[in-house]
Amino acid sequence: MRILDSKNLSVPGYKAWGIHSGIKKTDKKDLAIIYSEREAAIAGVFTKNRVKSACVLLDMARVKSGKGQVIVANSGCANACTGKNGLADARATAEIAARELGVKPEAVYVASTGVIGEFLPMPKMETGIATASGLLSATGWEQAAEAIMTTDLYPKLAIVQEEIGGKTITIAGIAKGSGMIHPNMATMLCFIVTDANISAPMLKKCLLASTERSFNSITVDGDMSTNDMMLCMANGAAGNKRPGVGSKDSKKFQACLDAVALSLAKQVVKDGEGATKFVEIEVRNARNPIEAKRAAMTVAKSSLVKTALFGEDANWGRIMAALGYSGVEMDESRTDIYVGKTKLVEKGLGQGKHADREASLALKQKEVQIIIDLHKGKTAAAVWTCDLSYDYIKINAAYRN
Amino acid sequence: MRILDSKNLSVPGYKAWGIHSGIKKTDKKDLAIIYSEREAAIAGVFTKNRVKSACVLLDMARVKSGKGQVIVANSGCANACTGKNGLADARATAEIAARELGVKPEAVYVASTGVIGEFLPMPKMETGIATASGLLSATGWEQAAEAIMTTDLYPKLAIVQEEIGGKTITIAGIAKGSGMIHPNMATMLCFIVTDANISAPMLKKCLLASTERSFNSITVDGDMSTNDMMLCMANGAAGNKRPGVGSKDSKKFQACLDAVALSLAKQVVKDGEGATKFVEIEVRNARNPIEAKRAAMTVAKSSLVKTALFGEDANWGRIMAALGYSGVEMDESRTDIYVGKTKLVEKGLGQGKHADREASLALKQKEVQIIIDLHKGKTAAAVWTCDLSYDYIKINAAYRN
Repeated sequence: MRILDSKNLSVPGYKAWGIHSGIKKTDKKDLAIIYSEREAAIAGVFTKNRVKSACVLLDMARVKSGKGQVIVANSGCANACTGKNGLADARATAEIAARELGVKPEAVYVASTGVIGEFLPMPKMETGIATASGLLSATGWEQAAEAIMTTDLYPKLAIVQEEIGGKTITIAGIAKGSGMIHPNMATMLCFIVTDANISAPMLKKCLLASTERSFNSITVDGDMSTNDMMLCMANGAAGNKRPGVGSKDSKKFQACLDAVALSLAKQVVKDGEGATKFVEIEVRNARNPIEAKRAAMTVAKSSLVKTALFGEDANWGRIMAALGYSGVEMDESRTDIYVGKTKLVEKGLGQGKHADREASLALKQKEVQIIIDLHKGKTAAAVWTCDLSYDYIKINAAYRN
Repeated sequence: MRILDSKNLSVPGYKAWGIHSGIKKTDKKDLAIIYSEREAAIAGVFTKNRVKSACVLLDMARVKSGKGQVIVANSGCANACTGKNGLADARATAEIAARELGVKPEAVYVASTGVIGEFLPMPKMETGIATASGLLSATGWEQAAEAIMTTDLYPKLAIVQEEIGGKTITIAGIAKGSGMIHPNMATMLCFIVTDANISAPMLKKCLLASTERSFNSITVDGDMSTNDMMLCMANGAAGNKRPGVGSKDSKKFQACLDAVALSLAKQVVKDGEGATKFVEIEVRNARNPIEAKRAAMTVAKSSLVKTALFGEDANWGRIMAALGYSGVEMDESRTDIYVGKTKLVEKGLGQGKHADREASLALKQKEVQIIIDLHKGKTAAAVWTCDLSYDYIKINAAYRN
């Protein structure tokens, strides 16, 4: 697998672009289109929130066909909690794009992110889709990534290449965060495309596995959105032989998809609302994978752990307290905690002022690793989170202003 | 039931006091003693965190006897994650108090709150307990309430009176918050005393019921502490006839205990770390009590709802999103949301700019009520929370400094 520079992102057979259509009050981009020159296999993962945006409802129905060709995504308005009118607007959005791009309406998927409870400004959508369709470019991915941003500070892109079935295949994606970030899914939009030739069922299976290891392993604020979705198109332009179930090629494909999804997920955490630190929490020697991840996630979510990280304070008692209420089998007197390379806690007991000082130094870095050894089993899991800062409050107190 | 002014709190047969013993680095009070002149029935509720402080472990064992006479509580050091030494220190604390006050060591309960992972400074504890014992006073409750404060801004006290079995009985209590506040239990200490004559088993039953309706119905930051405990002593000094199971008197007693516990719980929320608003979230017409409370609690916990409250922004989409991921049976198109008296959402849809403006005005008040009608059943539940402000971050980023 080769990790390419996402500055020069392009994938054979795809075009993309993003523009400002007037949905956002500012002059920032707010409408993106992703277009495959041929019909592609498609798979999707959607929010598990009972309250789903109109676009999620529409796409969940469409993705059953396993086929798609276009994604229209807007920021600034979530088209969630908008009832029947919202659903009609989502459908109309797809129809406009289908007309502009000469594809079937059912091959168009729509995605929205932004304020809940407001209706899409359809005249602006119509003009915007026409404009963006005319500008589509093989190298328009950064524009598209910018156009799906809300409180994100920078666009998120990733691209890898691999040899599969004798051909070079490319997998690339864009994503947006950056609040309401928590598994199942994180609040986010993520669109991945590949020129690989792969069946829709295998694509779905791979996407679910990648999601679990990437977007379902991050948290920013513990809130789950109404609009989360990840869509993955595979248009077969690479001309490779389809990888068979369980084949070496299918494993290579999975690894590439994992890499793109994880890169994007980590970018989402790094750009978490108000985040000043990127924190990896690894739990080792848990009884099983579910407990390993739950323990790590409980620590990653704790407001008190996250504020201590912001304060660069090695307050390990808060980590121990979070482990204690995680519901995971653990024993304080067997638990070790490391910050970076410093063993801060051994068998449940603090290792003194020197360790405390060393850990505090490690916490001054932009990237922090916390390792928790439960000594209860043999399974490990890692999750990624950020600190909780003044700016998270600032961004979210005034979000609709 | 008469609600008395907690400024003049006293309960027949009890004395209390609080002093600065030197555990805290500042000159603030950090050691409280509560003393019953005779052996009392006692009941307790303790944190469900797997990681329990030494004092919780000690008291959980002692409370099985149903008997107690003294509570020694310190702030500034949690005596949690301190292993065997911590447990020995907790036991020694009880022994020192027993000696000073001439009671059996097993009748002494200890409680601690503060930084996790540090050991109690036993010489200071010893001197402090001796000093405080000598100062015990029937009107020393405010001093005791001050001595258990950590980041609390003010002491929390409550007192009610009622006629039971032909006698006037008094129930009063003190509590501390104010971070790590979340059910099972909230991070807090709460000590309630009464001169009622009541059996230990009935006291326990009443205390559990009161806890569910008070401290298990509040949240500040979703973190659960290692040190939470609520102890309730009943010394029988009122000389009333013991209320029988299911009797009118037992219901009166329950109502009084509920009132004291709820008053203290609400004070904890009002004084939540960085709180600028006290918010009641009521869910109506849920399918059952568990779902009503879970829905209310999920909204109460959401960082995005809490930051919107701080920003005085009627961003109801975040409430709907939280209901959607609460796991509770709900249907967006049947859900109404009120802020104060303003219907902000009807059948899942926003009620326009006028309603939005009215709701924003209601959000400018210090006390805010949010009502959610699920139209799914017949059960209601209320919980209490506060907003999430810059000061929560400030307090918790620098807690150990």
